[in-house]
Amino acid sequence: MRILLVGAGGVGSAIAKIAARRSFFEAMVVADCDPVRARDAVAGTGPDPRFTAARVDASDRSAVTALLAEHRCDVLLNATDPRFVMPLFDAAFTAGVDYLDMAMSLSRPHPDRPYQECGVKLGDEQFDRSADWERAGRLALGGVGVEPGLSDVFARYAADELFDEIEEIGVRDGANLTVDGYDFAPSFSIWTTIEECLNPPVVWEKDRGWFTTEPFSEPEVFDFPEGIGPVECVNVEHEEVLLIPRWVGAERVTFKYGLGDEFIDVLKTLHKLGLDSTETVTVRDRQVSPRDVVAAALPDPAGLGERMHGKTCAGTWVKGTKDGAPREVYLYHVVDNQWSMAEYGSQAVVWQTAVNPVVALELRATGVWQGTGVLGAEAFAPKPYLDLLTAYGSPWGLREQ
Amino acid sequence: MRILLVGAGGVGSAIAKIAARRSFFEAMVVADCDPVRARDAVAGTGPDPRFTAARVDASDRSAVTALLAEHRCDVLLNATDPRFVMPLFDAAFTAGVDYLDMAMSLSRPHPDRPYQECGVKLGDEQFDRSADWERAGRLALGGVGVEPGLSDVFARYAADELFDEIEEIGVRDGANLTVDGYDFAPSFSIWTTIEECLNPPVVWEKDRGWFTTEPFSEPEVFDFPEGIGPVECVNVEHEEVLLIPRWVGAERVTFKYGLGDEFIDVLKTLHKLGLDSTETVTVRDRQVSPRDVVAAALPDPAGLGERMHGKTCAGTWVKGTKDGAPREVYLYHVVDNQWSMAEYGSQAVVWQTAVNPVVALELRATGVWQGTGVLGAEAFAPKPYLDLLTAYGSPWGLREQ
Repeated sequence: MRILLVGAGGVGSAIAKIAARRSFFEAMVVADCDPVRARDAVAGTGPDPRFTAARVDASDRSAVTALLAEHRCDVLLNATDPRFVMPLFDAAFTAGVDYLDMAMSLSRPHPDRPYQECGVKLGDEQFDRSADWERAGRLALGGVGVEPGLSDVFARYAADELFDEIEEIGVRDGANLTVDGYDFAPSFSIWTTIEECLNPPVVWEKDRGWFTTEPFSEPEVFDFPEGIGPVECVNVEHEEVLLIPRWVGAERVTFKYGLGDEFIDVLKTLHKLGLDSTETVTVRDRQVSPRDVVAAALPDPAGLGERMHGKTCAGTWVKGTKDGAPREVYLYHVVDNQWSMAEYGSQAVVWQTAVNPVVALELRATGVWQGTGVLGAEAFAPKPYLDLLTAYGSPWGLREQ
Repeated sequence: MRILLVGAGGVGSAIAKIAARRSFFEAMVVADCDPVRARDAVAGTGPDPRFTAARVDASDRSAVTALLAEHRCDVLLNATDPRFVMPLFDAAFTAGVDYLDMAMSLSRPHPDRPYQECGVKLGDEQFDRSADWERAGRLALGGVGVEPGLSDVFARYAADELFDEIEEIGVRDGANLTVDGYDFAPSFSIWTTIEECLNPPVVWEKDRGWFTTEPFSEPEVFDFPEGIGPVECVNVEHEEVLLIPRWVGAERVTFKYGLGDEFIDVLKTLHKLGLDSTETVTVRDRQVSPRDVVAAALPDPAGLGERMHGKTCAGTWVKGTKDGAPREVYLYHVVDNQWSMAEYGSQAVVWQTAVNPVVALELRATGVWQGTGVLGAEAFAPKPYLDLLTAYGSPWGLREQ
């Protein structure tokens, strides 16, 4: 397998370091719009001779297609932000290679009833092209990070192995990460968090299909394992809700993000003051986007690993019946920041996102996961995935509720 | 009396309109760095032939002195923001004229113990010059808006007429103003509100003198009159605490601002995220101050009068004894936005600030208030002030607690 990795930010760099310890691929080209970042990511692999750095603009379809051809790649792994999903997805199709990403194409709210009905949903633009990919005999594997990704594998595993009937599948994400020296320092991009959390959250129900709610709806306190403890969670727009119902039978599918009271209050305040906006305002005759200023005023989360303490947990809570008896489980994956920093020099949230597409690539390279068209991780056999993740040194857990 | 009014913003324009109905002065020159604003303020007076517009930079001492001489003014009224107190105060001294403002020279926090001890206090730079003004036989009347100003007159009135011994004097400011069409729209400059509320609040006690606390300290719910009702108030740095103890006997003096839960939460969040900062951050290769962006993202409060509803209340709560019995009163002044818009075309908070220096000028012009040096409103007889305010059509109230 010859891989083109596009994006050498925190997640891309961690992907390179994780892949460097595996033997399933022949070459990985690490490309970024900033050649220094690409070179640094390659340097972080040892250096391993299988890795080379390249410069590419992710929005330039023909440049990406040319780079795939130049290096004879057979798969493109997208580790950029979601704005670049469609150009990279298209470039991979044109080049006739497989494609993987960790998000999916962006949504647009319903023009009249944004908090009741879906407009353009996450992934819609990609699923609309699925027949083309099937005809070409190529696989586009969407949303194969930790959430979406591992969370979807858990959902499929629960359906295959643990339940006869499923009432609800709820992805639940929470952490107890703190950062020394800061009153407030998000462990993930505030720009993206605002985007996710202020978009109308999407819910799926068997009788209604997909629908939306007001932001921060259905608050609940979820008790996370391995010492993280109870965290306030609310509905957030996330790919799992669009992916899971396509392949896994359930009455209801939700995604709730354990933002905690404080973070929810911060996001609500930013929205109330118009500081979440990407529309520019005029300050001393210059145009500036308030959301960019919020991001610039906060520390860069990728650089906070050394000052960070605690654990992050991704997982899937499933409620239903098995052998006629009610059952409720939480399948989860916890990363301790101290471990990921010591072992890989990557902070926990970044490392947890990065390990999953490497596992998926290895299953693809070894022929364990086969398929064509636009698919989610829950379209494939979950057991080999979970076993391989454990073999990577990062086991998962199951808690009976 | 010939007056130079510097500053033709919301308050300056309202001062001109209020003064235009009175006969105590011969001429008022309205000067601003923006000549259009100065002309608009003059046009708002009728026009009244006693008013003329001029352009001046308030930070340019010699230009202000020259303008005072050119128009043979005998008093300078400063209606600019507090950064211009010292240049205008100095220009008035050099020109040999009286000086009035509605704030006082700015404070600087204690370098090591900002939340325990005062550094440079509000008004310190002016009081340091008091002997020079006395020797010159000229009056600098500091902080003679509504708060400080009317609140200080109330304190003196309580001491003279209502109490034998005073335990505590607490200025308390609250409102129930709402603005149609906005989730959040401050009725006063957010830039200045951040400055006031995030500076260390100052408290005076007879045994300790002046000292500071953490921001938002000593929260209390104060019940405001005339239908405004209970509002959460917290300690805020304000001139009254520096002025009142110099002339009025009390055990303790505080200022609490009725920000309400929501506004306090907004200010705390802005501080936590560094968005209150006036230090610039870099956004797309440009330098921008987060506080300026916050102000730009919110509507301009001076233009919200037509969409505003409700009342604003300024007042002084006094606790002590009279004739051996405990007594507790709240002396207050309420402006209904509907009235001030109909009568003067000025929103309530702006009008309430503007009426007070006009009353003070009239008492000075008619010889009722006489004095030299740097003085606060509480250095003078309070009864004529309160009677004249009532004669302006804006009565005050007294509530026995």
